[in-house]
Amino acid sequence: MQQSRTQCPSCPGCVSDSDCFPLAGLDTAACGSETPPLPQEGEASSHGCPNLTDRVKMRSTVMFYLCYLLCVAVGLACVACVCVWNSRWRGGFAWDGSGLQFNWHPVLMVTGLVVLYGYGAVLYRVPLTWGQNKLPWKLLHAALMLLSLILSVLGLCAVFDFHNAQKIANLYSLHSWIGIAAVALFAAQWTAGLAGFLLPCSPVWLRMLLKPVHVWLGGSILLLSVAACISGINEKLFFVLKANSSGGPYSSLPSEALLANSLGVLIVAFGLVVLKILSNTEWQRPESRPEGMAYTPLLQGEIE
Amino acid sequence: MQQSRTQCPSCPGCVSDSDCFPLAGLDTAACGSETPPLPQEGEASSHGCPNLTDRVKMRSTVMFYLCYLLCVAVGLACVACVCVWNSRWRGGFAWDGSGLQFNWHPVLMVTGLVVLYGYGAVLYRVPLTWGQNKLPWKLLHAALMLLSLILSVLGLCAVFDFHNAQKIANLYSLHSWIGIAAVALFAAQWTAGLAGFLLPCSPVWLRMLLKPVHVWLGGSILLLSVAACISGINEKLFFVLKANSSGGPYSSLPSEALLANSLGVLIVAFGLVVLKILSNTEWQRPESRPEGMAYTPLLQGEIE
Repeated sequence: MQQSRTQCPSCPGCVSDSDCFPLAGLDTAACGSETPPLPQEGEASSHGCPNLTDRVKMRSTVMFYLCYLLCVAVGLACVACVCVWNSRWRGGFAWDGSGLQFNWHPVLMVTGLVVLYGYGAVLYRVPLTWGQNKLPWKLLHAALMLLSLILSVLGLCAVFDFHNAQKIANLYSLHSWIGIAAVALFAAQWTAGLAGFLLPCSPVWLRMLLKPVHVWLGGSILLLSVAACISGINEKLFFVLKANSSGGPYSSLPSEALLANSLGVLIVAFGLVVLKILSNTEWQRPESRPEGMAYTPLLQGEIE
Repeated sequence: MQQSRTQCPSCPGCVSDSDCFPLAGLDTAACGSETPPLPQEGEASSHGCPNLTDRVKMRSTVMFYLCYLLCVAVGLACVACVCVWNSRWRGGFAWDGSGLQFNWHPVLMVTGLVVLYGYGAVLYRVPLTWGQNKLPWKLLHAALMLLSLILSVLGLCAVFDFHNAQKIANLYSLHSWIGIAAVALFAAQWTAGLAGFLLPCSPVWLRMLLKPVHVWLGGSILLLSVAACISGINEKLFFVLKANSSGGPYSSLPSEALLANSLGVLIVAFGLVVLKILSNTEWQRPESRPEGMAYTPLLQGEIE
């Protein structure tokens, strides 16, 4: 319901953009229990700030790109850390059933199930993609997720092969239960996403039912991945950093432990930044926002 | 913008509530790229379903209470599992610097930092509380979170005391880094929440800046708690279930390992249900929804 508007008490004389603090209009909340609605796009506000909405949007976009930059940077730092840890401290890589084959496991899981997965998850949030045909971005989202899934499955193959060659049991630890659940749900999510959102024959009602589940399960898989990575790094460091290790036991925090613990912190930070980007409704692609009920048919080259 | 409405093609003859599928109106999306907006509360829809909005709301409320029931049940199951694990398999409890003191650590952290924390976080989502004075619910939220914080700090004291008595180093593992970060952020969050939302002198603009940070940090602390719990249970089972253990090594999955692994799965499930409840905008207290910009002064006994 439209409220009557009065001159803003916080900046009564403002006549130009530079006079007015972007959120100044919201200070009128102090006068009562509600704030007046923000002016619609292109509509002049009551206190002489014609571009208030545009500036709020601009601020939101700048904040998004700062968060997105952080997401990309922290993701790259995760990949760099896990590669350095396993190449410098764990002896490098091979595919021969030895401990060097195991080293592919953390590298592939962190790169695939965490970083590439996170990059794919936030793709639709990039405002640059909103004014364009959605189909190429949808295909890129599916391709990034497929690459992420392939790397994750390869990461599982690495550890299963290593365990089988060394006659170590599979899938008994809590780490393995959480990790395998993450990959299984991810495979189911990708398949359902392909069937529901990319195949043109899927009905609209199915997409509408599937979409909130797809979005929620997407975040849930990331939470599982992060929990699996933290428990896996923790377990590995207890296994390998003993009193007779060259750098000393884990409890003396040798440089390997510092690096791998930092990798864990970076993974958690990456997960939090991705979940922040996913949960901010202002950063959702316009047709996906909760106040809009519009759903567009897919694979039809729609322009939004 | 109001669109012109036509007879719903999916149920052209419906005249009563029982004739019309609640989401049938949304099927018109199949005819074009957008669906017409849902009728406002109390407004009759164009296809003879006067209570469509009410029924969508009712369905949302029923779904909430099912989720809430699941949240409460899974939380109680977590507490039961962690108590049974430590009393039956780990020898019970004491506060004497022995391993029995350590047993308080998982019990207090799971009960405080996960279950009570989750219960406190979703409190505002209960629709039963929306039509009432917000202040008692705000105080209950703060009290639940304070109790959760106190239990978490006691849980940390249990493990620090045990480590000090046994001359074991503190805060070197990734589990401990993530866990201490969760409790430190929780303490900061509680203090900022008290200052920002309960003290009447805090300005409205501060609350508006603080609220999205408070909500996001709330979810982030839960993610940290879950990751810390999973890595902690995993680490503990590797420590105590050796080849010479009475039930056999961890890799043979003795009943203790099955119970503790199940506890880990329940903790993850609890975290996911809580995050689902928190992230669903339909289940947010009306004035907190993203489309509404209203903020009410706190500690003023407001009725909403």
